[in-house]
Amino acid sequence: MAEELSNPLETFARLEVSIAERRNSDPETSYVARLNKRGIPKIAQKVGEEAVEAAIAAVRDDRQELVGEAADLIFHLIVLLNAKEISLGEVAAELDRREGVSGLVEKASRPSA
Amino acid sequence: MAEELSNPLETFARLEVSIAERRNSDPETSYVARLNKRGIPKIAQKVGEEAVEAAIAAVRDDRQELVGEAADLIFHLIVLLNAKEISLGEVAAELDRREGVSGLVEKASRPSA
Amino acid sequence: MAEELSNPLETFARLEVSIAERRNSDPETSYVARLNKRGIPKIAQKVGEEAVEAAIAAVRDDRQELVGEAADLIFHLIVLLNAKEISLGEVAAELDRREGVSGLVEKASRPSA
Amino acid sequence: MAEELSNPLETFARLEVSIAERRNSDPETSYVARLNKRGIPKIAQKVGEEAVEAAIAAVRDDRQELVGEAADLIFHLIVLLNAKEISLGEVAAELDRREGVSGLVEKASRPSA
Repeated sequence: MAEELSNPLETFARLEVSIAERRNSDPETSYVARLNKRGIPKIAQKVGEEAVEAAIAAVRDDRQELVGEAADLIFHLIVLLNAKEISLGEVAAELDRREGVSGLVEKASRPSA
Repeated sequence: MAEELSNPLETFARLEVSIAERRNSDPETSYVARLNKRGIPKIAQKVGEEAVEAAIAAVRDDRQELVGEAADLIFHLIVLLNAKEISLGEVAAELDRREGVSGLVEKASRPSA
Repeated sequence: MAEELSNPLETFARLEVSIAERRNSDPETSYVARLNKRGIPKIAQKVGEEAVEAAIAAVRDDRQELVGEAADLIFHLIVLLNAKEISLGEVAAELDRREGVSGLVEKASRPSA
Repeated sequence: MAEELSNPLETFARLEVSIAERRNSDPETSYVARLNKRGIPKIAQKVGEEAVEAAIAAVRDDRQELVGEAADLIFHLIVLLNAKEISLGEVAAELDRREGVSGLVEKASRPSA
């Protein structure tokens, strides 16, 4: 299995950049551009729908389906955040704040996503 | 603002480990343990609810609320995935597969989260 | 079982009137007034949440839970509609329009379901 | 406006009968049959999705959209209940029980809403 795993950290960072790039491209060829053209309510609706599908997949105990729906959910959430000019870094900062671990974890000088 | 941003990559990886550790701790003191004790349907329900709240925050154009709800959504999604023994790495692999960039991006020998 | 069934037609009509009456009553004593005080986004959120719970109950095949969640969903939907000054009659007209059966179905004094 | 309103009581009762009849008809020609063929999780998903759409329409203050989404939500909820052999009467009984008004409210020949 190990070789099938991706480094989620690279994937999410890459996805965020990729989504930002595609946001203003041609709606004819880009799903992200198409979503943005339809507007925030449509993107928000997709986030809600994918979460419902993920929830149902989990309750059905359909593991593969849950992996797919979780991927869909994260994808559309990033599209929504990007459309609102919110970075994953800002959401991460909020998670850190809630977890109360911000100060405990060394924040090396690595550049953020 | 820059200094308020977290590196999302570190945060998500750390959160995944933290959630896995707390999963079997004392439900009296751990929210994650409490959710797991209530079972998959309850955790799945939380994922759906947080997505609805994020969608509404986005439509209302309440930026700060959206950051908070997105954080809640990611948190509960990781709790759900963890309860099903699914890693973020597996979801990331699915995202890579869909994006069709798996082969384009160098997958250095860095250990995954 | 028959004696445990209510006439849904009377119940929904009565509920709609009851919710309209309570809308402006004291939030301290009325849940409906409390919801309205919190505003449309909060009521809308409740509708989304109850639907997620109903969906999960259905997938889990928990019949009694589904009955309860369906009741919660209808209740909160009527609260939302009432807050927007939309009557069940207006929603019914839309359903009739879609079904395209308005004129085809005899509206006789047949006893209701 | 009055002439555009339907009697919701007749509509819901008629819709429940109509959905029950179509449940086992040809999936090629009947949407209800098609939904049932796809199974409970798919119908449950539709209930969740329509609720999200109704919630968003309410928050956007799009009255006509809300009427349409509320109609969709009620329609799919009845399909879900019917697929689980639950009547609106049973849900109404639960609403009556919660409201605690079953015995208190005269069920006279009052005209419906």
